[in-house]
Amino acid sequence: MKTHVDIREVALRDGLQIEAPVPLSAKLDLLAAIAATGVREVEATAFVSPTKVPSMADAAELAARLHDYPDIEFSALVASPNGARRAVAAGLRSIEYVVAASNAFSEANVGRPSAEATRQIEDIVAIAHDGGLTVEVVVATAWDCPFDGPTPPQQVLDIAAAATGFGVDRFSIADTIGTATPGRVTSLIGQLRPVIGDLPLGGHFHNTRGAGLASAYAAVTCGVTRLDASAGGLGGCPFAPGATGNIATEDLVYLLRDSGVEVDIDLDAAIDAARIAKSVVGHELPGALLRAGDRIR
Amino acid sequence: MKTHVDIREVALRDGLQIEAPVPLSAKLDLLAAIAATGVREVEATAFVSPTKVPSMADAAELAARLHDYPDIEFSALVASPNGARRAVAAGLRSIEYVVAASNAFSEANVGRPSAEATRQIEDIVAIAHDGGLTVEVVVATAWDCPFDGPTPPQQVLDIAAAATGFGVDRFSIADTIGTATPGRVTSLIGQLRPVIGDLPLGGHFHNTRGAGLASAYAAVTCGVTRLDASAGGLGGCPFAPGATGNIATEDLVYLLRDSGVEVDIDLDAAIDAARIAKSVVGHELPGALLRAGDRIR
Repeated sequence: MKTHVDIREVALRDGLQIEAPVPLSAKLDLLAAIAATGVREVEATAFVSPTKVPSMADAAELAARLHDYPDIEFSALVASPNGARRAVAAGLRSIEYVVAASNAFSEANVGRPSAEATRQIEDIVAIAHDGGLTVEVVVATAWDCPFDGPTPPQQVLDIAAAATGFGVDRFSIADTIGTATPGRVTSLIGQLRPVIGDLPLGGHFHNTRGAGLASAYAAVTCGVTRLDASAGGLGGCPFAPGATGNIATEDLVYLLRDSGVEVDIDLDAAIDAARIAKSVVGHELPGALLRAGDRIR
Repeated sequence: MKTHVDIREVALRDGLQIEAPVPLSAKLDLLAAIAATGVREVEATAFVSPTKVPSMADAAELAARLHDYPDIEFSALVASPNGARRAVAAGLRSIEYVVAASNAFSEANVGRPSAEATRQIEDIVAIAHDGGLTVEVVVATAWDCPFDGPTPPQQVLDIAAAATGFGVDRFSIADTIGTATPGRVTSLIGQLRPVIGDLPLGGHFHNTRGAGLASAYAAVTCGVTRLDASAGGLGGCPFAPGATGNIATEDLVYLLRDSGVEVDIDLDAAIDAARIAKSVVGHELPGALLRAGDRIR
């Protein structure tokens, strides 16, 4: 398998989201370490309610500092048309709009049902494209919901069909609570591909039950070319206290590179960035290479 | 992919090997918890030098207690013909004989070169088969050696050809230092299969760099039907202090079962066994389900 995978670094958003807010200066230190890895895409922040997510309250201030890195495509997560407008105003180049496939999760997360969040894709795309931004629709709880249990794949396919119809630029599926495994990942992707055609397909996995990297690799073997990852594995899951978070960027780089898959990220620099991430939050992170290091070559 | 994978529980051997010796009574508590999972194969101990590996010094005493579990196939690791004789005398039903593909590791581990250890397969098979035991040859450092770096695949193939010629009953490949990844696992297995014919092929993976479960699943997708795993992920690597050990039995069961692969082990019981393993050694273990639990169903 000879291929290239684009890794998007999400430590600054999904990684820091559930942490106690850290100063902007600490975020900028982490950003500098991330930029030094050679990564081409960084999810920098989220334009969401500062009351609900205080760690992202500095979104506009952070966005103003991103021009220091012209070679990186920065994106932000949004959950509403208003968030999309804020992202446009802040000068981002792309946005991720999250739609939860599970109704219960959608209600808990954004206060409206999944079908309504799906319809809003149309407005989000209009706002983003008018501002010259690309839009990725991210399906949260694509495999399981902490409230509703397993997500029927048809719910994901319906959002995919709507997103494709509304003209999104990219589509991705997120294992929000870290329960997916290679078999179900392969199955869902096989059902999705006919719906989304040749739209770039991404995967977002958490390592909560140890299967995150296995699921990510399974996704790559069936055509996913975009993966989210977080320095050091920063980013817990509020529904599984003590569980590990996002798949660690440096562990993913190690696995893909060693398996013959091309990535833009330098492994040693990624391990350095993971160390910075650890010092920014002031606690241990789950990334394996933080402990073991690269293999002897 | 509809298939069945035999998981061999190795916590009592590979798991406890580098720990400070624990009392026999604690091993028996762990064994009872392991037996309650429904597992069909258990690597119980090692007949090796008690000076070099003090935690396995009670091998014969432990072996004498195994008749309490007539439904489990117990095996022991050996490193020499003398070890094989001790295993026969102790009433084991099968042995694993380890041959390191890397010369430097073989010299460091057993004090003789890889070629000499390979030739000894003949004696080991004769001793075991005379005693009514089956023999599995395990190739250590099948992908990388901590001293020599990457292992040329031909060295593994040569051992496989010798083992097949000497009439071993099973063959397996071990990622001794936890550096293998799905791409190289798939590649080596593809080269091995023509050499070993339809001999049962097993895989032994460590999660040291986070890729253990991904490698194990990749092995299953290309025909491996036997996997080693350790309760809670017990079992460090002396060459990577602080790194995680064997792939955790309960995490492997979760991943395989959720991917539609049949296993004999009950997940809840496996999580219980991991908790016992943790209490036996008195420190945290790396298994993910110990923290996160099963998924919401």
